[in-house]
Amino acid sequence: MSSKPLKIAVAGLGTVGATTVRLLQKQADLLEARCGLPLVVTAVSARDRSKDRGFDMANIAWFDDAAEMATKADADVVVELIGGSDGIARQVVDNAIAAGRHVVTANKALLAIHGAEIAKAADAVGVTVAYEAAVAGGIPIIKALKEGLAANRIDRLHGILNGTCNYILTTMRQTGRDFADVLAEAQALGYAEADPSFDIDGVDAAHKLALLAALAYGRLPDFAGVTVEGIRNIAADDIAYAEELGYRIKLLGIAERAVDGSVSQRVTPVLVPIDAPIAAVEGVYNAVVTHGDFVGATVLEGRGAGDGPTASAVVADLMDIASGRMSPMFGVPLAKLEPGRAWPMSARRGEYYVRLMVADKPGVFADLAAILRDCDISIGSAIQRARSDSAAVPLVLTTHETTEAAMQDALTRISSLGSVSEPPHMIRIEKFA
Amino acid sequence: MSSKPLKIAVAGLGTVGATTVRLLQKQADLLEARCGLPLVVTAVSARDRSKDRGFDMANIAWFDDAAEMATKADADVVVELIGGSDGIARQVVDNAIAAGRHVVTANKALLAIHGAEIAKAADAVGVTVAYEAAVAGGIPIIKALKEGLAANRIDRLHGILNGTCNYILTTMRQTGRDFADVLAEAQALGYAEADPSFDIDGVDAAHKLALLAALAYGRLPDFAGVTVEGIRNIAADDIAYAEELGYRIKLLGIAERAVDGSVSQRVTPVLVPIDAPIAAVEGVYNAVVTHGDFVGATVLEGRGAGDGPTASAVVADLMDIASGRMSPMFGVPLAKLEPGRAWPMSARRGEYYVRLMVADKPGVFADLAAILRDCDISIGSAIQRARSDSAAVPLVLTTHETTEAAMQDALTRISSLGSVSEPPHMIRIEKFA
Repeated sequence: MSSKPLKIAVAGLGTVGATTVRLLQKQADLLEARCGLPLVVTAVSARDRSKDRGFDMANIAWFDDAAEMATKADADVVVELIGGSDGIARQVVDNAIAAGRHVVTANKALLAIHGAEIAKAADAVGVTVAYEAAVAGGIPIIKALKEGLAANRIDRLHGILNGTCNYILTTMRQTGRDFADVLAEAQALGYAEADPSFDIDGVDAAHKLALLAALAYGRLPDFAGVTVEGIRNIAADDIAYAEELGYRIKLLGIAERAVDGSVSQRVTPVLVPIDAPIAAVEGVYNAVVTHGDFVGATVLEGRGAGDGPTASAVVADLMDIASGRMSPMFGVPLAKLEPGRAWPMSARRGEYYVRLMVADKPGVFADLAAILRDCDISIGSAIQRARSDSAAVPLVLTTHETTEAAMQDALTRISSLGSVSEPPHMIRIEKFA
Repeated sequence: MSSKPLKIAVAGLGTVGATTVRLLQKQADLLEARCGLPLVVTAVSARDRSKDRGFDMANIAWFDDAAEMATKADADVVVELIGGSDGIARQVVDNAIAAGRHVVTANKALLAIHGAEIAKAADAVGVTVAYEAAVAGGIPIIKALKEGLAANRIDRLHGILNGTCNYILTTMRQTGRDFADVLAEAQALGYAEADPSFDIDGVDAAHKLALLAALAYGRLPDFAGVTVEGIRNIAADDIAYAEELGYRIKLLGIAERAVDGSVSQRVTPVLVPIDAPIAAVEGVYNAVVTHGDFVGATVLEGRGAGDGPTASAVVADLMDIASGRMSPMFGVPLAKLEPGRAWPMSARRGEYYVRLMVADKPGVFADLAAILRDCDISIGSAIQRARSDSAAVPLVLTTHETTEAAMQDALTRISSLGSVSEPPHMIRIEKFA
């Protein structure tokens, strides 16, 4: 067995980058035993050279310019941990590939948006672009889809892909507090960014879903084809009503293949049955449930972010490269990837939860029932609280199975009723039957 | 890319073997796209040649003798799905290795008991022995330990490794029925074998645990070093009391590394907190929770048996071989495997649940309390029901943390009390703190 080391350049030494280097140094013996050769950091690049990051800089070359490092460092692999879909991160990856180096990255935005070009460039040169750390932290879901579950046709997968949103929804449920209040606390605790929109508007989860869908269905990532709704409009009331109806509210990424081969990709809050495995995944945990035609349902769960889990995934990719274990970037060779035909949200069939604020007077329910009847939607259950002093009272409905198109039509009509005082709060129900 | 097919001989055409061949035929296009070459069954062997097994026998050679097929078939890989730790299964594997063929097997008993010799033989010839299907059905836990989580030192892992036991315990809890009654039903439904002892006495789970521990700790499998207790003695009462105390009873396999590097391997029924992820794994599902030093806790869950999940795992191994993705049989090369020092059960520290049947008269509790005090064990909680007409009443205790040695000493003394009418029912509590 060869003992020539795998030489690694790390671009970006934030908490993840620094922990990755620390892991590589701390577990050097273990990694060498498992790979049959040493994994050695030969170069790093970050903004502030003077900072002590808790690892040994001896024999590591410093580069002020990460893009230059990607080209010039004495390295077999460049690890990109800078982040962002463009700018310097993109340049690091492009330069590394152009220089014939393998790339390991945790950058979901970059790959979801530019994955097709990057895959083509890497394929032309014959290098690997590995990204286990880009989705669900340390959970080996990329490997599972590429290899462990690869004998299956994937009918459907769904996952909690953003720990910040899951923390907020879990805390709202446990405390009964409102979204804004819990978000502010999450920001204070460092679980949410100062600008939280990437997380709470579902964009981060959508990046990850685009990668999972590409792998599951042998397509290039189609981020533009993901329907995205965040959790800003989820009220404490919705969570309480959901609970009363036997559901929990989760921000889920769902990818699903229709019989005609088109693929639905969507990130939205959904009501899930309280006894579904995904309902029990709480706080900052992530989980992905995959339905394969032979294996049935499998669940992979773990911490979806944080420096330790992310470094664990980055180094797993490095170990695969060191061991010569390669697989195509999106599961099948580039030439065999299928075009990504999208199945639009309007084609969804399913049940719906709707919370309305209605005037507390006779005839309101009759108006609503008539609209639903005209849209061919039947009511599953209804909750209306005892009368109160306020002008508007909540009315909560669930529907039997119907189409998204019918539901949207009904919601438009309901919004125009004089007795309905704010836009309807609609949340889709996913039963995973 | 080469398009020379990977030629596969399948020994054993029970439900798993037949489904494996069906999968290889049905998904041939998908597998070829993912691997870059066709996966082709060239030979099969089973007892009854005339049976229709739902796949196309054209171009597949038939062998009456599986051991002969392993040597003589036109094959790169021999898939062993006969089962049993010795006899024909062993011979198939030995012959295949001797003939320089890779081996894929679902045979946990064979590898747990003879894994060391098989690994040595394979290493000498330079072939792979892959066994994803041997543990937890289609869940890619072997790959996760070898690759996806391989950057971590594993502090501890625990899992539900036997679907039959989990089904029985789940049904007992849901229905309040007794062990014997539920077992009989499971046998009638085909969830338990006519001779159920391999499952319910924990032997099957112990085989799997020995493999997981070998992988997690870079050792040869040490089946003889596994402490095994089955679920025959779990009463409906124990499940009800556990529930009352905030626990569920699960048959868990646990592997744990002590600070001195020795490894504890045990399969026993345990009380787990009702909010632990493993407590929610019900029915025939399996799950493995792995604690790594960087990644933290990850959970992999899915159907632990059945022809579809098992075939999925067998074919995933074949795809790795077709793609040239190799890893050492027990995670590190044979020469670097550490000797398997065992950490005896008597060194366990933890809490305990004890159910006693005691005479309903004064002084009994005082006698028990004195014994526990003398053994330096403190009581966590106690449940004693209102007096009844029967001579003996149940008394349930949980302890604070103590040692297994102290607990065993106390149980011996308690057994000798005249007021205690049957042997104490002790179940360990695992809190996974």
